[in-house]
This record gives sequence, C-alpha cells and structure tokens, in this order.
Amino acid sequence: MANRTVHRKAKEYRWEGVDELPYKEDGRALFKSVTRQVLFSDPELRGELRYFEVAPGGFSTLERHRHMHAVLVLRGRGHCLVGTEVRPIETRDLVTVPPMTWHQFRATAGEPLGFLCMVNAARDKPQLPSADELAVLRRDAKIAAFLRNEPA
Amino acid sequence: MANRTVHRKAKEYRWEGVDELPYKEDGRALFKSVTRQVLFSDPELRGELRYFEVAPGGFSTLERHRHMHAVLVLRGRGHCLVGTEVRPIETRDLVTVPPMTWHQFRATAGEPLGFLCMVNAARDKPQLPSADELAVLRRDAKIAAFLRNEPA
Repeated sequence: MANRTVHRKAKEYRWEGVDELPYKEDGRALFKSVTRQVLFSDPELRGELRYFEVAPGGFSTLERHRHMHAVLVLRGRGHCLVGTEVRPIETRDLVTVPPMTWHQFRATAGEPLGFLCMVNAARDKPQLPSADELAVLRRDAKIAAFLRNEPA
Repeated sequence: MANRTVHRKAKEYRWEGVDELPYKEDGRALFKSVTRQVLFSDPELRGELRYFEVAPGGFSTLERHRHMHAVLVLRGRGHCLVGTEVRPIETRDLVTVPPMTWHQFRATAGEPLGFLCMVNAARDKPQLPSADELAVLRRDAKIAAFLRNEPA
C-alpha cells in the first residue's frame, strides 16, 4: 500500500494512483453508497489518511471500535451521530470519534458528503450494534430520527 | 493538546477551539508568513493532523527530518520542492515527503496556500540545510529558481 510518489494530482475528488473502493452492499443495509480512497498509508507513518464519500442520501456503517476517528469534512454536508450527539456537519467541520463510541455519517439528499478520516495504522476491527444496543440507541428520539434518515 | 470535543465548526479556514499559531519570523528568513493550526492531536492517536497556511508569496521552512509528511492541499496553489523535484501544486493535490528529504512549500503571489499535513505524533526535529547543502541544492537551476521564488 505504500506509495511514495511525491506528487499525486486530484481530479475533483479522485486521486491519481489511488483506487476507489466501493463498499459492497449486502442485504443487511448496514451502509449505503459509500466509497473509500486510501490517500496515505506507509510503513513509516503511524497514521493513515482515507477519503470517504457518501452519495446523496447514503450513510456509513453504524459502528464502534477501540481506535479513534479524526474526521475533516472535505465536501458537502450531512449529519453525524457520535455517541448520543446528532450534529449537522458541513464542509471543513471537524468530527472527533472517541474510543468505543457509536458513530455514523449521513449525506443530505441533495449532495455527496466527502470526508477525510485519520486513523491509527494499527487498529482494531469495528463492532456492529446488537439488536439490543440498537433498541437502546433508538430510545433517544433524536437518534431514532437520525437513523430513519430524518434528522431534525 | 487532546481535544475530544465531538464537533468543531469551521469558519473558512479557522477552526473552533483551535489556536492559530503564527510562526515567529526572525532575521534568518527561514520561512515567511506561515500559520499553523493543530486540528487533531490526542494520546490515542498515533498521527497528528495540522493545517498550515502560507500567505501569498510566503514559504515554509526548507528542512528535512526522519519522519514523513503526508500533505493534502486544502486551498490555493503554489509550488513545492521535495528532494530534487519542483512541482506546481493546487487544491486537493497530495504531496508525500519521504524520510530525510529536503522540502519546502511556496504560495503563489495571488492567493494563500493552505494544506493539511499528517505526521507521526512521535517524531524527530527538523534539520536545516548547512551553507554547503544549500549550495548543492542551488546547483540545480530549477531548484535555484524555486528558492528565489521564481518557479518556472
């Protein structure tokens, strides 16, 4: 994965020499219309920088993990859930996902939501919520509306 | 430095709760008109994400170090020197600075150059070129022109 090419040009939100990885959707509808590009990953770097793009109306997986996410919105707008907070987010906003915190990103209907996400190169796998954990989240009306794609 | 505020809004290229640190200029003119904002730095993160802004006509320090730089241009345009390569760069381009490689970023005359830079949280201090090392760099006409702020 290490790419030491000094200069990689961008065409809009696609980068030279970087694969765009679509997430394979399955019947569980855990996420919708998300692509990923790994911008920086190198044995010498302890962090990785990835770019995710969520198509209009799409959403990332609702998950949690031990490692943190450090997010900068690069384009568009949407909402995020982090723990029990639902927030409208727009270009250049920063979002911090602390360890073991449920989180999800949703694009607005009208435009894609693109964001950079810095993580540790060495990190644990995401955990998905159980039915019980989802039920607990949904007890909060604000979170339930977010999960129905109807943020206030 | 750890800031676990979940959501920090941006106003243009200034972020809520983030100090903007001007670099103190001294008589050596090692850099010109550069500010820094540390966007993400946390004991749980092995990387740090900083935003640097170089005012029109300004430039970052010419330096090298053991740690790598992973750069994404967030606004504007300019030129960079990485090793012996001088490249025009513009918004969203990626620049990789390998270990122990001389590098410098220069903004064009007309607009600021803003870029994100991911580094390891644990890293060595930058080294400045000696007079001899500078002389060697300047033997390359392309690099000499870049250092005079007159990239081709």
